[in-house]
Amino acid sequence: MSLKLFELVGTDVERPFSPFCWRTRMALAHKGLSAQSIPWCFTEKQAIALHRSEKVPVLVDGETSVADSWAIANYLEDRYPDRPSLFGGEGGRAMARMINWWGDITVVGGMFPLIVADIPANLKPADAEYFRKSREARFGKPLEQVVAGRDKSVEGFRKALEPMRLTLKSQAYLGGDKPNYADYIVFGAFQWARVVSPFKFLSGDDPVYAWREKLLDAFDGMARKSPGHQV
Amino acid sequence: MSLKLFELVGTDVERPFSPFCWRTRMALAHKGLSAQSIPWCFTEKQAIALHRSEKVPVLVDGETSVADSWAIANYLEDRYPDRPSLFGGEGGRAMARMINWWGDITVVGGMFPLIVADIPANLKPADAEYFRKSREARFGKPLEQVVAGRDKSVEGFRKALEPMRLTLKSQAYLGGDKPNYADYIVFGAFQWARVVSPFKFLSGDDPVYAWREKLLDAFDGMARKSPGHQV
Repeated sequence: MSLKLFELVGTDVERPFSPFCWRTRMALAHKGLSAQSIPWCFTEKQAIALHRSEKVPVLVDGETSVADSWAIANYLEDRYPDRPSLFGGEGGRAMARMINWWGDITVVGGMFPLIVADIPANLKPADAEYFRKSREARFGKPLEQVVAGRDKSVEGFRKALEPMRLTLKSQAYLGGDKPNYADYIVFGAFQWARVVSPFKFLSGDDPVYAWREKLLDAFDGMARKSPGHQV
Repeated sequence: MSLKLFELVGTDVERPFSPFCWRTRMALAHKGLSAQSIPWCFTEKQAIALHRSEKVPVLVDGETSVADSWAIANYLEDRYPDRPSLFGGEGGRAMARMINWWGDITVVGGMFPLIVADIPANLKPADAEYFRKSREARFGKPLEQVVAGRDKSVEGFRKALEPMRLTLKSQAYLGGDKPNYADYIVFGAFQWARVVSPFKFLSGDDPVYAWREKLLDAFDGMARKSPGHQV
């Protein structure tokens, strides 16, 4: 078994970011699998073109390559069925599909405009320029203006987490007593934010904060050991 | 086996409404169970006090009574394990907990201010008065003012369905190839709206519209046969 994972990094190759790559990192750890990390930067499109993708994560498993974090999670579940399940049954897999979209839109999409201006400082000059130019075009204004007033606008983000927060009042994880892929979907976004920005998304008394702490400690503190800010 | 279900009705006892009662109706049908419906009105608190609840649905299964649609779904899953699963495994059950909160907040909570003024016309005078008074106190204004401009404000509701809409692009139901409790959580809200209000929440080309049509047809058209508006 020789797995390789293309992961997004900036100037520090020991500091992978991207909410989607972290979903995959956590999923691999859940399955008890290790993968050789291949650091990848935004502007290295040709390095993964061979695997028919323009984005990471890309997982290479022998002769097989799989792009997209959701596709990778499904691949791991089907390829390694005897290892701990990521979904806890077919119903869980189906529902995780919706939680994945919720995570993309509400969590990643909700965080992005609050931390986007902190990201270029983590990147090599060529990547920083690519990032700023493409994202400023998307937002239609300088990144610094996008994040202005975030201490206030974070309230909307916190409110949007309410379905998750209420769930965590009656169970330890989105996956139940133990974390599963539903947790990694959301945690990946928090880990991405923690790696690139000092911004505090959660107040200390939020059940989501306590849940994040537990996932930072999961798998021998894998996520906590990765360089990041105190958030 | 003799199941009874206390269900919310208005002037027409053949026209049960409440998003939560419809979740339970669909769950019972999914399990292939039938229950005797006991019509219940808002102001009949004493009729269900015996079952230690102030709200419906309340399911009575012989000596056991269970209140709250989520608790009932769990009860049915555990009590009738050999019948079709509502959750498709323990992972599904855990994730359905979050989808249930999402359904309460985003779907029921999103619909309510758009149809609240249509509800009193479905109720007996004493219930209509109770309903208007309690809900106007909650909103701090007349119900007619709450729904004003709904043709425009419905856009926000439609946008909030995006995680579900995107999910339905790659699978037929939230539960996968076949509907499960995740679908009934959301469908219950649409069925409630259809029963009490002519307001059109969805455009005809919305994948959520097509999904709703299929669930209206499920179980021999059980939900479609229940009196409602063309929406």
